[in-house]
Amino acid sequence: MPSRESDALRAQFQQMSEILAANPQMDMATLRNLFETLHLLAAEVPGVSYEEADAGGVPALWCRPEGAATDAAIFYTHGGGFACNSMHSHRKLAGHLARAAGVPALVIDYRLAPEHPFPAQLTDALTAYRWLLDQGVPAGRIATAGDSAGGNLATALVLRLREESVPLPGAIVGLSPWYDMEHKGKTLESNAATDALVQLPILQNMSAMFLGEHGSPTDPLANPLHADVTGLPPIYLTAGGHETLLDDTERFADKARAAGVPVTLRIEPEQQHVYPYMAGRAPESDAAIADIGAWLVATLDAG
Amino acid sequence: MPSRESDALRAQFQQMSEILAANPQMDMATLRNLFETLHLLAAEVPGVSYEEADAGGVPALWCRPEGAATDAAIFYTHGGGFACNSMHSHRKLAGHLARAAGVPALVIDYRLAPEHPFPAQLTDALTAYRWLLDQGVPAGRIATAGDSAGGNLATALVLRLREESVPLPGAIVGLSPWYDMEHKGKTLESNAATDALVQLPILQNMSAMFLGEHGSPTDPLANPLHADVTGLPPIYLTAGGHETLLDDTERFADKARAAGVPVTLRIEPEQQHVYPYMAGRAPESDAAIADIGAWLVATLDAG
Repeated sequence: MPSRESDALRAQFQQMSEILAANPQMDMATLRNLFETLHLLAAEVPGVSYEEADAGGVPALWCRPEGAATDAAIFYTHGGGFACNSMHSHRKLAGHLARAAGVPALVIDYRLAPEHPFPAQLTDALTAYRWLLDQGVPAGRIATAGDSAGGNLATALVLRLREESVPLPGAIVGLSPWYDMEHKGKTLESNAATDALVQLPILQNMSAMFLGEHGSPTDPLANPLHADVTGLPPIYLTAGGHETLLDDTERFADKARAAGVPVTLRIEPEQQHVYPYMAGRAPESDAAIADIGAWLVATLDAG
Repeated sequence: MPSRESDALRAQFQQMSEILAANPQMDMATLRNLFETLHLLAAEVPGVSYEEADAGGVPALWCRPEGAATDAAIFYTHGGGFACNSMHSHRKLAGHLARAAGVPALVIDYRLAPEHPFPAQLTDALTAYRWLLDQGVPAGRIATAGDSAGGNLATALVLRLREESVPLPGAIVGLSPWYDMEHKGKTLESNAATDALVQLPILQNMSAMFLGEHGSPTDPLANPLHADVTGLPPIYLTAGGHETLLDDTERFADKARAAGVPVTLRIEPEQQHVYPYMAGRAPESDAAIADIGAWLVATLDAG
């Protein structure tokens, strides 16, 4: 049984689904304002303060836990289908991860689709990552991390870094990453009845905006399920048992393991998409955040 | 000439006005999501962390500057026409005030009209204020503060406290307070061309929601321009020279002075409604915040 507290995530997703169904012609500004309300899911994080930064031209937000290490960082790319959300809506979620790991998190505000299709998001992530290296943080002490579409970016960025011969981070964290731009996951159908928000039409709409006219759904940088993942750093993946994108996590975990990448996989039964959103409120979320924090401490130290 | 940075406030208000004009039938949820975007105006405040609180049943947010006094507090009521906004949209603005004054700010999330008309907002403020006293903060070391409709509440609360014989705060701060539920201010017309957001129809709509079926626009607790203000603590009022509600500030300042209340008045030429929103971005806002902070230090110490 999921906790009563975690059910609030399902309820908020359900409410958003109803609003979306009642307003099929919703304009992007209204849609984005609706998605920004996701910030309400996470509680404020005592002892974490925030500071805006210009990460080489990419707006970003530092989440700084009191007494955090200064030689390490979480490089956070937010979710929202590449078209919604911001460093603001994901500030608290990143702040919880930062506190759990004892390192600052940098949340970047990459450009959004459809105004800026693929690879604008990845270009901004690369720019901001290089800026972070320029701040003196060693690559091996950086973890890229993200949820949903941001989990894709946190992974694809590492593939892009490898292409550019930029030093790779020491770890990757994906919270319900959305990798599959072809919509082939078997849980899209088998979990359609239990996922309160993420249904095929939304994904089709968002992948179309993301890929634009020139992007391909099988480009490894848009869809890391098509990538050669050999040599990637250790990766921590978590997803909810009730979500349609569960199969993205499971397929990528299998693929990475087969390539010799150390994979830590946490499937939380009966939870929704990006269940760690409920950080500071639901026990399942807090347990996952604590586990990720401990894993980061161990993994980045060993890097 | 207003600074280039402060013009971003006018631009955001103008954009909101255009969205409202294009969507005359906007539902409350969409309207509230639109008003929540006002949080973008203020920059994050380095060195301030946040913690949610249950203030006697009223949700609230502590904004805690590093090293802040623990025996004093700003009791903050947010604006938004009594019908919009939240402790979240005003978190950063309150955080800037808190840092400038070197004391924590408690931002309360009072119930909103029209679901909860007058005096629900005042009832919640009273409940949360009593809770704050119960935390051991001496009344004389508390400042009530708020912007727009929240500036009304920050003032009306003190009138209500006097009725209930609850110890009064040591200071009141109003940022472009909206007092006049009769819409009689002369700047409503004379500044209609320069105020980018606050026009008579919006005020009429919001006062109708606030007053509901039973509230009166001349009730002193709904419209402090009708109150006996004798014995109120020192009050700091600021407003922009271009705003339609300027006259609310000027009339209340005159009234309070006539009653022997110490009044500090700062009219910032050519600025919009609640221009301190641009804290951390525009020099006019930062100067006002710094001045209010210094005034609070002096006033609360003397209390």
